[in-house]
Amino acid sequence: MFEKVGVIAKTKVENIDKIIKQLVSHLKGLGVEVVLGEEAASVLNENGIERHKLAGYVDMILVLGGDGTFISAARSVNESKKDIPILGVNLGRMGFLTEVPLSEMYRVLDSVFIRNEYHIEERMMLDVKLYEGDELIIKKTVFNDAVVNKGALARIVPLRVKARISSNIYHVAVYHADGLIISTPSGSTAYNLAAGGPIIYPTMDCVVITPICPHTLSNRPLVLPVDAELTVMMDEEIDDVMATLDGQIGYRITKKHRMVVGKSKRKIKIITQRDKNYFDVLRTKLNWEERKIRSLKC
Amino acid sequence: MFEKVGVIAKTKVENIDKIIKQLVSHLKGLGVEVVLGEEAASVLNENGIERHKLAGYVDMILVLGGDGTFISAARSVNESKKDIPILGVNLGRMGFLTEVPLSEMYRVLDSVFIRNEYHIEERMMLDVKLYEGDELIIKKTVFNDAVVNKGALARIVPLRVKARISSNIYHVAVYHADGLIISTPSGSTAYNLAAGGPIIYPTMDCVVITPICPHTLSNRPLVLPVDAELTVMMDEEIDDVMATLDGQIGYRITKKHRMVVGKSKRKIKIITQRDKNYFDVLRTKLNWEERKIRSLKC
Amino acid sequence: MFEKVGVIAKTKVENIDKIIKQLVSHLKGLGVEVVLGEEAASVLNENGIERHKLAGYVDMILVLGGDGTFISAARSVNESKKDIPILGVNLGRMGFLTEVPLSEMYRVLDSVFIRNEYHIEERMMLDVKLYEGDELIIKKTVFNDAVVNKGALARIVPLRVKARISSNIYHVAVYHADGLIISTPSGSTAYNLAAGGPIIYPTMDCVVITPICPHTLSNRPLVLPVDAELTVMMDEEIDDVMATLDGQIGYRITKKHRMVVGKSKRKIKIITQRDKNYFDVLRTKLNWEERKIRSLKC
Amino acid sequence: MFEKVGVIAKTKVENIDKIIKQLVSHLKGLGVEVVLGEEAASVLNENGIERHKLAGYVDMILVLGGDGTFISAARSVNESKKDIPILGVNLGRMGFLTEVPLSEMYRVLDSVFIRNEYHIEERMMLDVKLYEGDELIIKKTVFNDAVVNKGALARIVPLRVKARISSNIYHVAVYHADGLIISTPSGSTAYNLAAGGPIIYPTMDCVVITPICPHTLSNRPLVLPVDAELTVMMDEEIDDVMATLDGQIGYRITKKHRMVVGKSKRKIKIITQRDKNYFDVLRTKLNWEERKIRSLKC
Repeated sequence: MFEKVGVIAKTKVENIDKIIKQLVSHLKGLGVEVVLGEEAASVLNENGIERHKLAGYVDMILVLGGDGTFISAARSVNESKKDIPILGVNLGRMGFLTEVPLSEMYRVLDSVFIRNEYHIEERMMLDVKLYEGDELIIKKTVFNDAVVNKGALARIVPLRVKARISSNIYHVAVYHADGLIISTPSGSTAYNLAAGGPIIYPTMDCVVITPICPHTLSNRPLVLPVDAELTVMMDEEIDDVMATLDGQIGYRITKKHRMVVGKSKRKIKIITQRDKNYFDVLRTKLNWEERKIRSLKC
Repeated sequence: MFEKVGVIAKTKVENIDKIIKQLVSHLKGLGVEVVLGEEAASVLNENGIERHKLAGYVDMILVLGGDGTFISAARSVNESKKDIPILGVNLGRMGFLTEVPLSEMYRVLDSVFIRNEYHIEERMMLDVKLYEGDELIIKKTVFNDAVVNKGALARIVPLRVKARISSNIYHVAVYHADGLIISTPSGSTAYNLAAGGPIIYPTMDCVVITPICPHTLSNRPLVLPVDAELTVMMDEEIDDVMATLDGQIGYRITKKHRMVVGKSKRKIKIITQRDKNYFDVLRTKLNWEERKIRSLKC
Repeated sequence: MFEKVGVIAKTKVENIDKIIKQLVSHLKGLGVEVVLGEEAASVLNENGIERHKLAGYVDMILVLGGDGTFISAARSVNESKKDIPILGVNLGRMGFLTEVPLSEMYRVLDSVFIRNEYHIEERMMLDVKLYEGDELIIKKTVFNDAVVNKGALARIVPLRVKARISSNIYHVAVYHADGLIISTPSGSTAYNLAAGGPIIYPTMDCVVITPICPHTLSNRPLVLPVDAELTVMMDEEIDDVMATLDGQIGYRITKKHRMVVGKSKRKIKIITQRDKNYFDVLRTKLNWEERKIRSLKC
Repeated sequence: MFEKVGVIAKTKVENIDKIIKQLVSHLKGLGVEVVLGEEAASVLNENGIERHKLAGYVDMILVLGGDGTFISAARSVNESKKDIPILGVNLGRMGFLTEVPLSEMYRVLDSVFIRNEYHIEERMMLDVKLYEGDELIIKKTVFNDAVVNKGALARIVPLRVKARISSNIYHVAVYHADGLIISTPSGSTAYNLAAGGPIIYPTMDCVVITPICPHTLSNRPLVLPVDAELTVMMDEEIDDVMATLDGQIGYRITKKHRMVVGKSKRKIKIITQRDKNYFDVLRTKLNWEERKIRSLKC
């Protein structure tokens, strides 16, 4: 049973103050202690806990926002090294990670806190290490993807990828492209999908390498086992190339850098409901339900 | 001014009898003579004119149905050699060819017949000739596309394409694929689009060759000038390969056959309204209006 | 150590008689007993063992041919219920399954039989059951893929897919398409790739569902865990629809049929060499090595 | 008959000094006056004419390099307002614009200068105007493409496109993507192709709009008539967005800017040989000749 809930909210949303106030009051009514993150607290003119420290105070996080808010909450949980689960409530309609719409929030909270009815789903993450020469300069864990891509003015980037699989090191390919996405299954419906990559069931353990606008037309997305450790390097010096982690943090890289991506030991725990399912979200978000182009004989 | 209107209707539609009855009565009220096609007449237990003869009796055709009904009406008009325009009313929401929804039919009829306000848009067609050896066995004009494709059990078909452009004959390529679509701009939003081909503005004069599931991964759709006469032949004998014209007429072909596709001298005239436009149909039919996958930061 | 080797050969190949004769003689020289399959034997005017019985007599199979020959050999091994490994020698250059080119055959045979140096790689398969109503009419194991697709004349097929994952049954989607491919990782570089599916590392355990020319343009290939049991049914009666298993066996299906696809308990064992790797085959077969479209600044 | 030839060369090429020396001597032997561009001259330690002035002195340009060198030569010719043709010699194997390989240069020169045997092919260009508010800040003519795209760190850019076709202004779409390519037929085999756009026969008159990694998965490349004047604007302020013309010149743009793209009155004239053809270049450059993934039955 969860006793202390941390609340992380996206605050640039209409009526967010009312939503948070009601939520806090409802949770207190259920006998749950509520700890607000800084942003959520500021909406109520209160003091809250910095996002990256919040996980330390609570035994579960409730995210109010979209998938982006969820990801930044997941990052905080991860950095706290505390292994607590996250419940995502979408302030819009429905997200891949925030699968509970606001209209169903109270019903779901009652399931979780009164009847103890919920399910914990685990999602894999990737550890990304950026080296400059032999020096490790950045180490981060990503939930969605690690991307190397060129700036608007740069020309095609040749990116060499190596894979270490069961202690053998293989040359995968040199991609000539606008960039490269290394995505988790959770990230497969984000940038990877826009770049032509496949949808991967989110609880699977694997990675997908998807080139962005490859100039070798026969290049295709490549799904690899999660224990494949991937190394990405520029094969030729090109200006204005960046490594971007989960779409939010960017580092300028050169031919001296290499990005090493491998399975993270940590997983993110998501609180889900039995009656929710991934395929419903998929069909809704991607508009699969309607037949858009009808048969010529219609 | 149009004085005699032929009506071609899709009849497997709820309340089609009421719709046709009201339409006939409305048109008569506007002083227009109405000639029903066979199917439309049968719904009212009357005798009508066979579809392919209808164009001979009237100076415009009104189609009630979907894009498929429109195409078969266009075929009739074409075979009649009479150069009359077609107005398409969609019994569902909106089609690429039947751009007037039922709910706006009377408003549009009043524009056309009372205020004489309408616009004639011309759409190119392709003449398709099928030869067995030197013998011409079939000659048809298509509005959407000529397709060569394999049956469910056949293996990859190697299809050799030649193009005659300004009196030179060029070897285009041998495609190894499930088949090949040669499409008009009107047909570009039909099978061509499902196979990965581009959308082509419908009043343009060109053709697009799109391979279906090509095994040479670098194959791409190819847009050619309309005066390119294309010849398609099987490069190797494969069982169970068909040539299909406008998705409706199929001919089994062998290595002895060749399909020759070129610009038709005839064009189809479509009656359109100034306030309708192609891009509106495109965005609606293809669901472009909504952003389906939101930014990670949403 | 392998003592009895069965040989299955593609026989429509130049000099196949000499190749087999030399091979037999070489293997005998190594002290190995050779049992020829029917086709291989017929080339030497001898009597051989029927392909599907061959596995019963030997403790390893050597395939001389292409990936297709390998697959049919794998099917025989599988039907024999004997768990023996297969070594694939390609009579052309290189295959995904037959990774040893003819020019390296003797070197590899010496590794395997003299120095006992080889590696066994396991590939998953899928069990496919076809039901008509409640009656199980066909049960087969596929190495590459189970495909449902329409004939050349059929219109779009609506295919409903359900997935059973950890005892829950989910509605995945209704695909409106030319057909649907359910592929193993081994099959991912075959029909799946031509239809736009991803490449999946061959020793992984998962399946990919790839629609063929989907009319819902936002449909994308979907990678699922191998323990997902998939059921495919037609959602509307369409004539001329077939289920095809490994590209070779076809069954006409109707709305009364359902195809159930799940993980096979059996795996195929492939004899590989340490110095061979999947990415080399990939780059060579898909032409990734050369940069085909150079930068504008080249 | 051409009497004065300007030579523009890519100089970072092995033995370029010998190649130019021989070329000059050969042309002089044919009675042709040769004027070297600055770079070509510098290789011989001579003084040459600045690239953008060269067209003013000669009646044809010979380009030694790749397609990129050709494009910059075309830009010079265009800026000179002199309507002289260009002959492209590729220092590598073959280009879309530089279709003569070095090994055939002398044979082709003899055709052109001795036997007067050649063909002039015209390629359309696009005039691009960039406005900040109402002020025209840049006006350029592009040979390949005008691109708007985001930098490595920017999020999805919403780009609103309007089209003026026969004096009507239409809302085309708001694309949510990494960017947008507006390409000529000549440019269709460059960035457009990498982003999933179709190949367009190079002498056609049309434009293609291709979104780069669109997040609306049903977006597709759109081919429009050349007289469509397109306006592209950001629909929301996003940092780090650039307009790039022919891959070489970049301008940072904001929500206040709009890019207007329309048919150029000028065309580029290319000197071609009867025995060369576009499809040969296509098949060679895109590796269409070989069947890369063979049938399972091979």
